[in-house]
Amino acid sequence: MVPTPTEQLAAHRIELPVPPLPAGTYAPVVVHDGVAYVSGQVVVENGAVVSPGLVDRDVAPEAARAVARRAALQGLSAVGAALGSIDRIRRIVRVTVYVASSPGFVRQHEVANGATEVLVDIFGENGRPARAAVGVAGLPLNAPVEVELWAAVD
Amino acid sequence: MVPTPTEQLAAHRIELPVPPLPAGTYAPVVVHDGVAYVSGQVVVENGAVVSPGLVDRDVAPEAARAVARRAALQGLSAVGAALGSIDRIRRIVRVTVYVASSPGFVRQHEVANGATEVLVDIFGENGRPARAAVGVAGLPLNAPVEVELWAAVD
Amino acid sequence: MVPTPTEQLAAHRIELPVPPLPAGTYAPVVVHDGVAYVSGQVVVENGAVVSPGLVDRDVAPEAARAVARRAALQGLSAVGAALGSIDRIRRIVRVTVYVASSPGFVRQHEVANGATEVLVDIFGENGRPARAAVGVAGLPLNAPVEVELWAAVD
Repeated sequence: MVPTPTEQLAAHRIELPVPPLPAGTYAPVVVHDGVAYVSGQVVVENGAVVSPGLVDRDVAPEAARAVARRAALQGLSAVGAALGSIDRIRRIVRVTVYVASSPGFVRQHEVANGATEVLVDIFGENGRPARAAVGVAGLPLNAPVEVELWAAVD
Repeated sequence: MVPTPTEQLAAHRIELPVPPLPAGTYAPVVVHDGVAYVSGQVVVENGAVVSPGLVDRDVAPEAARAVARRAALQGLSAVGAALGSIDRIRRIVRVTVYVASSPGFVRQHEVANGATEVLVDIFGENGRPARAAVGVAGLPLNAPVEVELWAAVD
Repeated sequence: MVPTPTEQLAAHRIELPVPPLPAGTYAPVVVHDGVAYVSGQVVVENGAVVSPGLVDRDVAPEAARAVARRAALQGLSAVGAALGSIDRIRRIVRVTVYVASSPGFVRQHEVANGATEVLVDIFGENGRPARAAVGVAGLPLNAPVEVELWAAVD
């Protein structure tokens, strides 16, 4: 028997964070035609962004990678809240990882791995998405990383 | 009777701008499988970009928010031109708001609200999209904001 | 008879590059519900990024345009590798061109034309996509351009 995503969470001792409330006029998740489009996730804890600033100047790349992982988990949590369970996810289709980058930082792909590795942990090869990783000038609330993901769902 | 999007435009005294011509080799809108993918919109008036420059250094955030609103309306106008009417829009699925950001500007989400609030005015909850808001280093023609939207259509 | 994409490649003397291996935890292409989502492409040759740096400061815009063209061809090559042939592509639906931009560079749309013009050469009007072109702070491996494309496929 292939373990379900929920079983994989338990096996990897991963706890999904509470999905954050939208910080503006948008929906956390829109489901259309079998795809759940999740809004860009920044990681907030107790009302404050975790590891604020530009990666490489203010935030170490390894810390940014950990934020990317949590942002991906927040995205899954948002899908679970919208659909009742992450077990309705069939495939992670696509992920964009925006990394707030100090001048000269060019390892956005390593930060982005933090997001996509945990998706493969949970969904196996169905969690390996198409991906874009880019370095941006700044992100809402001074977040170091924003992760957007789309999932094919039942 | 739920008012149509066209009726909501009139009720809110919103006039859709003329859709701009593409500034390069691309289509204003591609419709595939029930989704209208609208190219990124920058706001041009009389041949010149409105409020050029980086937000917070050259352009006040409130002015950028107004540009984001107009860019969203341009996007709707492009869908209307492609399909005959914006009344064929069923759902705004997803919006990305790119904000040309001066160093340290981290309120891209507030600028992005300019785009998504007017969509909710026109389409109600069907206008509340999944969204990403990010700060970029620069945009075509020195635009302060670029808005990309996708709409589910009949 | 309309020439096939493969015939158009020959007519335009275009050779598709070998698709690069993923530089991280992602899939080169995910096909879902008739759309091939191609991961963001940066151009690597003999293990090194071509024309590294920020456009306008380190890389001339014309050189960046040539990189954008090659990145688009790499994307097609990835689709061909995933599906057996680029002749299964029916429509280029959408392209995002991320341009690593030095401060003040605002001609991302001209760089982006390098990607979309070659798509029109190969697929005719079916190769003219919806497009977003934006200037970013930096890209993986110091690439000057990253191109993401999605194609409707048989």
